[in-house]
Amino acid sequence: MTGRLIGVGVGPGDPGLLTLNAIDALRQAEVVAYFAKAGNASNARTIVSSHLNGAEELPLLYPVTTEIPKEDAAYRDAVAAFYDASAEAVAKHLDEGRTVAVLSEGDPLFYGSYMHLHVRLATHYPTEVIAGVTGMSGCWSSIGVPMTQGDDVFTVLPGTLPEYELERRLADAQAAVVMKIGRHLAKVRRALDRAGRLDRAIYVERGTMANAAVMKLTDKLDGCAPYFAIVLVPGWEQRP
Amino acid sequence: MTGRLIGVGVGPGDPGLLTLNAIDALRQAEVVAYFAKAGNASNARTIVSSHLNGAEELPLLYPVTTEIPKEDAAYRDAVAAFYDASAEAVAKHLDEGRTVAVLSEGDPLFYGSYMHLHVRLATHYPTEVIAGVTGMSGCWSSIGVPMTQGDDVFTVLPGTLPEYELERRLADAQAAVVMKIGRHLAKVRRALDRAGRLDRAIYVERGTMANAAVMKLTDKLDGCAPYFAIVLVPGWEQRP
Repeated sequence: MTGRLIGVGVGPGDPGLLTLNAIDALRQAEVVAYFAKAGNASNARTIVSSHLNGAEELPLLYPVTTEIPKEDAAYRDAVAAFYDASAEAVAKHLDEGRTVAVLSEGDPLFYGSYMHLHVRLATHYPTEVIAGVTGMSGCWSSIGVPMTQGDDVFTVLPGTLPEYELERRLADAQAAVVMKIGRHLAKVRRALDRAGRLDRAIYVERGTMANAAVMKLTDKLDGCAPYFAIVLVPGWEQRP
Repeated sequence: MTGRLIGVGVGPGDPGLLTLNAIDALRQAEVVAYFAKAGNASNARTIVSSHLNGAEELPLLYPVTTEIPKEDAAYRDAVAAFYDASAEAVAKHLDEGRTVAVLSEGDPLFYGSYMHLHVRLATHYPTEVIAGVTGMSGCWSSIGVPMTQGDDVFTVLPGTLPEYELERRLADAQAAVVMKIGRHLAKVRRALDRAGRLDRAIYVERGTMANAAVMKLTDKLDGCAPYFAIVLVPGWEQRP
């Protein structure tokens, strides 16, 4: 009998946005795994910390790859090897019959690292995925901004896209979220401006955390944004 | 002292996907409001039923509008008048100092009816919104399908769009969800086919419920789909 793999969505940051199923999975798990950068606390682990009952912890520490350009095949290989090794470390516990909960910020199957384990393990082991509140839902709820209604088209865009692609897509959706802002802030601002959407754009940093920063993007005068900052462009323009 | 308005996301259907904050809000609420069709149970109320502790219930019953074409100004006016009256009914409790929790399936600010109360009341009363797991997250998690990864563009489309619009947008996103399938099923299927995405499309009915129906869209041979059925087009095509 092998153990069970559970991908656990832990939501956007506020421990109050954990679901009952997530807490239940933590109660069942004999091993709790999570991705983290070496030397940094795992955000996902912090979110669930008051629900850990002495299960064995399996931190999966990203390799340091800052010296390799992201476009390099060497970078891709290093990351793939890391996910292979991480899946093996989880599989070892599963083979020994232990239930492993893998924590995932937000929703596990929506831009989450958990997926790298899922695609390697879910065909070999009994697997369950527990949906979570996404980071973007946490952001727009914390500031009470209606995002989408009726027949709105809604789009999620990575800030890494070329400027003309961002502009085109921002002009073509009623509501949008731009993720991974970081060093792309100036480009995203220009694209929003040319798409005629800058006035509606809201900049959000650390959405559901106590130290959240929220402002109209036009009021964000510096060029500094963390990687995980997002920009919301609310839809429902005809609202009463 | 007026009462507090709380928009409570109750998730996609499984009561286990309620968040701790949602349960807490139900504990605090002196009035629990929810939208429903006359003669039908409210799905949102069913989801939270084991957490209701005798708070007063305020069902907000949609008017029967089937005899008015949706394109008519008369339809729009009837619906607006209904939301006005609903907001007034909630405001009466708030004015008398009672905390009102308004249930919302999925996430309150993402295509939710709660928003119609929010835009009428949030500027006048202390208001809090509790993010919830969306219906689409519930669907892809229940079937364990990775949806989006890395720099994928993700789009949510209403099935009501014209066929050429659906085709264009489906061809232009790495991952997509088509909502409100209902009588648009045949059109959505043709658009997916012409966009070259039909092979990846998954049809989901009642995602997280015990009686869920899930199949490849190419295996769905009949033309019958309920309004709330959705189609998932997973991204991350280069996955290992």
